[in-house]
Formats: sequence, C-alpha cells, structure tokens
Amino acid sequence: MTESSTAPRPTLEAVAARAGVSRATVSRVVNGGDGVREPLVERVRRAVDELGYVPNQAARSLVTRRHDAVAVVIAEPETRVFADPFFALQLRGISKELTAHDSQLVLLLTEGRDDHVRVGRYLAGGHVDGALVFSLHLDDRLPGLIHGAGVPTVYGGRPGWGDGTRGAVYVDSDNRGGAREAVRHLVALGRTRVAHITGALDQTSAVDRLDGFRDVMVDADPRLIVEGDFTPAGGERAMRELLDRCPELDAVFAANDLMASGALRVLRERGRRVPEDVALIGFDDMLPVAEQTDPPLTTVRQDIEEMGRLMARLLLRGLDRRSATEPAAAGSVAQSGLVGAPSSVVLPTTLVRRASA
Amino acid sequence: MTESSTAPRPTLEAVAARAGVSRATVSRVVNGGDGVREPLVERVRRAVDELGYVPNQAARSLVTRRHDAVAVVIAEPETRVFADPFFALQLRGISKELTAHDSQLVLLLTEGRDDHVRVGRYLAGGHVDGALVFSLHLDDRLPGLIHGAGVPTVYGGRPGWGDGTRGAVYVDSDNRGGAREAVRHLVALGRTRVAHITGALDQTSAVDRLDGFRDVMVDADPRLIVEGDFTPAGGERAMRELLDRCPELDAVFAANDLMASGALRVLRERGRRVPEDVALIGFDDMLPVAEQTDPPLTTVRQDIEEMGRLMARLLLRGLDRRSATEPAAAGSVAQSGLVGAPSSVVLPTTLVRRASA
Repeated sequence: MTESSTAPRPTLEAVAARAGVSRATVSRVVNGGDGVREPLVERVRRAVDELGYVPNQAARSLVTRRHDAVAVVIAEPETRVFADPFFALQLRGISKELTAHDSQLVLLLTEGRDDHVRVGRYLAGGHVDGALVFSLHLDDRLPGLIHGAGVPTVYGGRPGWGDGTRGAVYVDSDNRGGAREAVRHLVALGRTRVAHITGALDQTSAVDRLDGFRDVMVDADPRLIVEGDFTPAGGERAMRELLDRCPELDAVFAANDLMASGALRVLRERGRRVPEDVALIGFDDMLPVAEQTDPPLTTVRQDIEEMGRLMARLLLRGLDRRSATEPAAAGSVAQSGLVGAPSSVVLPTTLVRRASA
Repeated sequence: MTESSTAPRPTLEAVAARAGVSRATVSRVVNGGDGVREPLVERVRRAVDELGYVPNQAARSLVTRRHDAVAVVIAEPETRVFADPFFALQLRGISKELTAHDSQLVLLLTEGRDDHVRVGRYLAGGHVDGALVFSLHLDDRLPGLIHGAGVPTVYGGRPGWGDGTRGAVYVDSDNRGGAREAVRHLVALGRTRVAHITGALDQTSAVDRLDGFRDVMVDADPRLIVEGDFTPAGGERAMRELLDRCPELDAVFAANDLMASGALRVLRERGRRVPEDVALIGFDDMLPVAEQTDPPLTTVRQDIEEMGRLMARLLLRGLDRRSATEPAAAGSVAQSGLVGAPSSVVLPTTLVRRASA
C-alpha cells in the first residue's frame, strides 16, 4: 500500500499514467469525483496512494490568486469565542453570505494575543483572499501584521488608532448614539443617579458607549462609572462595586446585555427591585438573554448577524473589483487592501423597551 | 496612495529597493516587524502599499511543504457547532495542543453538507498540513474527498464504512462499553422496562451506544427504542413518544446529556418523579449540563477535551514522522496520510453516579 520514494513530487500526469485514465479524470476525482464511475475512482485513488500524489492547488492559486476562501479572526481566546453568543451571531451572518458566494469560511482560532503573530503569518501565507477581523483591542498588533501582509480586510467595529488602521474599512454600530438614547431614556424616567458599567475600555465599542453616556450625564459623578469586561461575571463584579460606592444609585446602563444579566443577579441579591428601585438598560438585544431575564431587559438593539453579513459583503465586493481591474497582478492596493472599496458603514441602533427600564 | 499596474508580481527585492532597506528588513516587517525601528517599518509599509506587494509564502510553502496549520472540520452546520458545547470542548483540547506546537487552528465552517465539496477543495489546496475531522455522518462524502486529496487526517469518532475510511486513524470513546455499563446499572437498580433514546443513527457513536444497550437488553421491546438527534429538543420529542407508547416504562438511557436534559423536562411535565418513577442516565458528563439538571444526571463520562487533544497529538506526531522520513517529496503516504502513524485510540468511559439513577 505504501512505497518509499525520494523522487520529485509526483505529477497529475504520473497519476493519470499509473491509473490508465485521462488527466481530466484524475482532476475530477481529486476534486470530489463528480460524474466519474466508481471503478475509475478506485483506480485513481489507488494511483494517488501509491505515488503519494498531493494535488498542486497551491501552485495553481499562485496563478489565479483566488482561493475562494475568507479568513475570520476574532481577537479573543477561543474560550471566549464559544462562551459569548455575540460571536456566534456575527459568524452566522458571515457564514451565510460567504456560502452564498461559494467562499469557504476559515476561522482562525487562538489561545490569546500571543498567537497573533502566527495568525498574521497564516494570513500572509496566501491561503485566503481576504480577512474579516473583529473584537480588536487597542494594543493588538493584528492590524499592523495584516496591513504588512497586504491582506484585504474588513473590520467588525472601528479598529482604533493603532498601526495599519488608517483608512481601514469597517462595519460598526452607532455605539455612541445608542448609548445616548439609553441614558436619555433613563433620565426621562426621572432617574438622577445613573451609573454606567463600561465594556473593556481597550475596545472602541466600549469607549464609544462611555462617550455616549457622558454626552448625556455631562457632570456624572466618577464613582458612578465602573469598568467591566463584557462578560456576565464582569457585570456582577462591577454592580457590587457600584452598590458599595453609591448605594443610592437609581439606574444602571450596562454596555452589553451579558453584563446587564450579571448586574441583575447582584441587584436581586442585594434586595433592589428592578425597575422600581433601580432601572436597568443593556446593549445588543442579545436573544435569548435579553428576553429571558426577570424582568426582561430594556436594551439598545444592534443587528449583530446583519453586521457579519455586511462585513462579508463589503469584502467580497472589494475582492471582485480587485480581480476585475487587475486579473493577474496585485498592482493597486488601497490601505484596506480593497480597490475602490465602499467606505465604512455605521449601522443605526434602536431602543427596545421591555420591563427593566 | 494607490497606483495601477499590470506589471508582474512585485518581489521582495523590489520592495527593499523602493524602501531603501535590506531584504531582511522587509522580511522582518512583513512577518510582524519585530525589532525594526518604527520609521523603517513605516517606509517598508509604504513601499508594500505602493507596489501592491503580497508576501510569497504560498510559493515558499510549496518547497518546505509545511504550513504550520491544521484544519478542523466539524461535519455539522455552523449553527449546531455553536449550540452544542460538545464541539467547544473538543476544540478546546485541539486548540491547546496545536498552540503548544505553534500550529494554527484553521476551523472550516459550513452551512451544511452541501458545502463539503468546497471544504474538500480547500483541504486539497495546500493550505494546511493535515486535518482533524469529527461528527461525521455515514453518507458524508468528506472522507472520500479528503482521501482523494491525500491530506493526512485523524478522525474524531470511528468514521464508519464509507469511501476513504479504510485504515483511517481515529480517536473514539468506548461507546458500546459505556452504554452497556449504564444499562447494567439501571437493571441492577431493579428496573425492568428500560427505554433508550438513541443519537442520530447515521453516526457511529449513536449506533455503538444502541448496540451496547442491546447487549444488555437482549429482548428489548422495540417500542422502547426511539431515535433522537443529540439535541435537547430531540430528547423532548423522543421522551414524549416513549411515554405515549409505553407509559409503564421505569428507566431511560439517553445517548447524550443534552437529550437527557430534554427528556427530564418532559418527565416532569408528565408528572413522573426522577428517579423514583423513572431512572434516567445520560452520556458525556457534559458540564455544566449534567450537574445543573434537577436532579443532577447520572451519566457515562467521556473526556471530550482530552479526545480533542489526543487527535491533535496523533496528527502532529504523524506529520513529524512524515517530514523526518521524506524531507522534500511526498513519497510514502499511508491510507490515513500518516507515515508509520500510531493506530487508532479508543478511550475508556466511566459511569458517574449522581441523583437521577
């Protein structure tokens, strides 16, 4: 079944000769065997085995420069990727859009930011046509690595001011406007001591929501602002700290629904009624989280799946333009790697009123 | 910032000349910029931009034939991948092992089996050193496609009898033995009308657990066996059907914990006490599911994370042997694509007794 050889890489022709079939038949078998009769498939596979043939698609894609594959990089450890439904939703939108264009979704998972150099190396390796990158943190080296590698990229969320982000194309929600609307709603309810649990402040989405909070609470007591980390446990910690600092607070705006659900547990534990004693608003409209809390969450809705779909659509459109203008060479590459790409998109948010505020 | 060009692919040398730096400096910037002063990084990046340079790692890897990347294919739609904690656990084990060997985890997501040909194409495209494939269904074409592509592969779970699976290397749990132990435990409790909710019977894990059930309940009433699908909703449906068919049943063995949790909800809804009226056992010891049900689940433990780790370890070991024996050519490839690879591994299971049986 196996035989050793130090000869050069066996070719498609060698497989065809060994199997006694045409090159076209070998090619069809190697690409899935559609329309080839079973005995022929068997013969080709045996020849592939015996010669140790490896299809030379890598060489082919050097010529066409299209892999029909798009990398997705979530700048979080894989444990968080699978624990936070936000990422699953965004991936759902991306997956649908890529599949509709027969492009393979290649998710590059890591254990943390120490692995980003390896991700950059993979992206630079000519394995994908472009990349969709989200959940960046301000000191992440990924944008610099990606930019250096010349990989066309669309970011999920404004990527901040680091290396390689100038002119970057991104899809974002109106985080500042959404936060403003949430806090205005709390003020309209007559609340005066409004607290804010921020997201991780090394992410622009968290910074923008904090800015929106400050737009309304211009003279906010700094003790009413505590940094969280977008996780339920982070929401619990922050809520405890807020109640210790300011037991008289009467409203909380949490920068996402997961933190709001954690805050809600602590408020109940401390005997505060929501919304009677403390009104609470989240961000995301993350289902089923926002609907299943008791009481259900008033929140700022962003269409996370649609954001994913849009990121993929912008990238594919840019790639199509790129191949249309330069069939073989990579002459003209804008900062984002996308030729004549549409500019970034900021989607509007909506306040969804349920029972918590 | 952008300029058009129909010239041939710009080279590293051209970038170096444009930026007025050495080839080594360009190479360092492209690979992450370690130890290069910021003004030089900027100059190189500008030259990369202006020339539209794309690092030629694809060409390089044609020579070395190592990409330091391993594909993971879960033969389920991405919606299930993110809904079932089983996959997150297996990926956790894989991710830890690959990261320890500085190999990039490349997760290929799909919308369903219609996309498997595209996955096969990507695997054949020379983008990864090998593949880890799990949750196969019996009529999946993936093993045939992978085998045709000559990609070294380790399967999670015995891959069945389809194309390309002869001689395949896999990591599995002792599904049949574990099921046998669970059902024997129910019999030892004095239960006589023991029902079984199977997994999806186009998967070998479900078939093996059913066989284990039958090993003990040799004369089982066929009405006591209902096919499920490994999801909580499937467990609910199957439990309803079992109670309609055989209201006198006094024990249930569900082929995984998620289905057991669904069955438990239906048993409570129908007024059956667990374990007094109906004893219930699951499979997996999927935490926190198995511990948080009321009552907590007695179940058959398999170490899912360890299975993932072991799959990755077997693959990497096989790849190392492969490059050691044939530094440049792909001469000798066994059926699994792994040279002198260790044979498959079947891990033992343990019965974990909690309150449900």
